[in-house]
Amino acid sequence: MNLGLPVIDCDIHNAVPSIEALFPYLSEHWREYIRTSAFKGPVDTAYPPRAPTTVALGVSSADGKPPGSSLELIQKDVLDAWSLDFGILNCAYPLDGLHNPDTAAAMASAVNDWLIAEWLDKEPRLRASVIVPTRVPEMAAREIDRVGEHPGFVQVLLPVRSEAPYGNRRYLPIFEAAARHDLVVSLQFGGTPGNPPTGSGWPSYYIEEYAGMAQVFQTQVLNMIVEGVFDRFADLRVALIEGGWTWLPSLMWRIDKDWKGLRREVPWNTQVPSGYIRERIRLSLQPMDAPPDAAQLLQVIEQLGSDELLMFSTDYPHWHFPPDQPEQAVPAGLPDGTRRKILSENARAFYRL
Amino acid sequence: MNLGLPVIDCDIHNAVPSIEALFPYLSEHWREYIRTSAFKGPVDTAYPPRAPTTVALGVSSADGKPPGSSLELIQKDVLDAWSLDFGILNCAYPLDGLHNPDTAAAMASAVNDWLIAEWLDKEPRLRASVIVPTRVPEMAAREIDRVGEHPGFVQVLLPVRSEAPYGNRRYLPIFEAAARHDLVVSLQFGGTPGNPPTGSGWPSYYIEEYAGMAQVFQTQVLNMIVEGVFDRFADLRVALIEGGWTWLPSLMWRIDKDWKGLRREVPWNTQVPSGYIRERIRLSLQPMDAPPDAAQLLQVIEQLGSDELLMFSTDYPHWHFPPDQPEQAVPAGLPDGTRRKILSENARAFYRL
Repeated sequence: MNLGLPVIDCDIHNAVPSIEALFPYLSEHWREYIRTSAFKGPVDTAYPPRAPTTVALGVSSADGKPPGSSLELIQKDVLDAWSLDFGILNCAYPLDGLHNPDTAAAMASAVNDWLIAEWLDKEPRLRASVIVPTRVPEMAAREIDRVGEHPGFVQVLLPVRSEAPYGNRRYLPIFEAAARHDLVVSLQFGGTPGNPPTGSGWPSYYIEEYAGMAQVFQTQVLNMIVEGVFDRFADLRVALIEGGWTWLPSLMWRIDKDWKGLRREVPWNTQVPSGYIRERIRLSLQPMDAPPDAAQLLQVIEQLGSDELLMFSTDYPHWHFPPDQPEQAVPAGLPDGTRRKILSENARAFYRL
Repeated sequence: MNLGLPVIDCDIHNAVPSIEALFPYLSEHWREYIRTSAFKGPVDTAYPPRAPTTVALGVSSADGKPPGSSLELIQKDVLDAWSLDFGILNCAYPLDGLHNPDTAAAMASAVNDWLIAEWLDKEPRLRASVIVPTRVPEMAAREIDRVGEHPGFVQVLLPVRSEAPYGNRRYLPIFEAAARHDLVVSLQFGGTPGNPPTGSGWPSYYIEEYAGMAQVFQTQVLNMIVEGVFDRFADLRVALIEGGWTWLPSLMWRIDKDWKGLRREVPWNTQVPSGYIRERIRLSLQPMDAPPDAAQLLQVIEQLGSDELLMFSTDYPHWHFPPDQPEQAVPAGLPDGTRRKILSENARAFYRL
C-alpha cells in the first residue's frame, strides 16, 4: 500500500490484550483487587471483544486476542504496510465507564506505563495519546503531569461523549495540564459517561449511536469555542478523531451566523467561531461520511475553507475501505498540494512531529 | 414584497396575547385555577416576552402585546405584505414545560379552540398546527382526534426537544392520531422537556442552544427513520421547522453509509435512510444556516438530491433578513423551477393545499 508520498496515520487503535498484561504496571493492591473481585477491567458496550464485523479484512489474526494487541501486529499491518513516517496510537481503554475514581486513575497509569514500555520506547515511528480518568479532572491532570513529558505522548485522549460539555469550567484542569506539556487534546468517538448520547434521551439502536456520534462532536466543538477554551489557552489544539467531517461546513456557517446576533453573550470570543476551528481544530480523515458522488466530496473539502483541517487516518483495525484498495482511504481528485497536506503535512505541523 | 410567484409561508408564529385571551375557551375550573394560583400559563425560557432583539424590523407594534398576537397584525405584516396564497400558523405555546398533564391538556384545547375561532374561521388563507400535550401521548392523541378534522388544521406541532426521541414507541399514539386525520407531524425549534439539549449535558449559553438545535433535529430525523416510524405509517409526512437544513446532506451521506453495515438491526427499513427523507420530510427555509458564498449555497441545495425538500418561510416575527430586502429570504441564483417549488409548490403538495 504505497500512496507515493509521506504518510502519517493519526488514528491507530492498539488494544490491551488482557487485564493481566497490565499487571506489571499495577500495584499489588490493584492486582489483588482484580484477581479477587468480579472487576476484570472496564467494558465498552459498543464493540464486543474481538467483534469480527468491525475489523477490516487483512488485519492480522491475534491468536484469540483483540486486533492490534501487539506491537508486532501494528508494525506489520500499519507502520510497514503503509510505509508510515509516524503513527499515533489511540488506545480506547474505556475508563470513563468506571465510577470508582481511584480504580480509574490506577488503570490509566497502568495503561500509560504499558504504552511507554511496550510501544513507545520500542518503536520510534509511534506516538500515543495519554489515557486519563476523565470523570475527575484533577486526577486526570495529575496523570498528564506524571507522563506528559515523555516524548512519545503527543495528545490527551478524551472520549467525545461526556457528562458535561468539555468547555465547562469543571474540565479546566485537563486543559491546563495539556497546556503545561504542549499536548493536543483529542476528542475520540465514543465514551460511556452514563447519560444518553442525544439531547432527546436514549436511542434504541446502535446505528443511531454510531451515526449520531457526529452530533456529539458538533455539540462539543460549539461548546468549547463559545465557552472560551481556545481564548483561555492560546496554544490549545484539538483533534477530532473518528467523528466524520462533512458536517463541519454547515456547523461553521451556522455558528458564525448565530454568533453575529448573540456574541454579546460570549465577549471573550475575539474572532468568528469558524476562525477557531480553522486555526486550532483538526479532524481525522476516516471514517468518511462522504457522498457517493466524488465531485460533491471535493465541494465539501472546498467548503471547509482550509486545506489544513484533515489528517490521514486508517482507523486501524476498523473497516472503512477494502484493504486491496488503499486509494479509497483518501478522497479521489484532490489537488496535489491538498493531498500532500492530508497525507502527512497537516498532522506533522499539528503534532509537531 | 412581491416575489413574482405564488408564495406559501410555512412558518408564521402567532402568539396568545395573554392568558385571559384563552378564558373563553377554558372551563370555570381552569379559569379559577389561573386566577387564584401563581400559574399564569406556560413559560418558555428561550424568548423573553416581547424581546425586541429577536423581532424583525418592520413587524407591527402590538400595543404592549407580543408580536403576532392578533389576526390583523398577521394579515398586515405577512399575508398581505407577502401576497401569500396560504400561511401556516405555528403557535409555539410551550405546553411541554408543564408537568401537570391535566393542565397541559386543558391549555392545549383552549389554544386550539382559540385558533379555530379567532384565526382559522376568520381568514381563509390561514392554516394552523394542532397544539398537543406531548408529555402524555395518549392525551395528545385525544386532542388530535377532537380537532383534527377541522379543515384549518394541517399538522401536529411537536417541539423538537423531547424527553425521548420521537421514534420511540411511547409516541406511537400521536403518529396514529395524525395518520387518522392525514395530518403532517412537524418538529419545531425549541422545547422545554427538562433534559439537557445535548448528548453531553447542559450548555452554558443561549448561543449553544440556538445553534445546537440543529443537532437535536439531526437526532430526531435519524431516530424516526431507523425506529421505523415511516414504515409503520405509509403516509406519514414530517416537517422540520426552523431547524436549518444545510446539515442535511452530510446526515444523509452518513446514515446511508452506516446503514449499509448496520441495517440488520433495523430490518423494517425497506430503503436507504435518505430515501425516507426525500420522500417524506420537508424543511422550512428560514433561518438559513447558509454560507457567505452564494455559489456554495447552491452546491448544498444540489447536494440535497431533490428540489422538493425546502418550503419557503418567513419565520415571522423573527428576524432573519432585512425587511426591505425580501429577496434575501430566498437563495439567489436558483433555477426557475426550483424557486417556484420552494416558494409554493413544495408546501402545496406536502400540506395538500
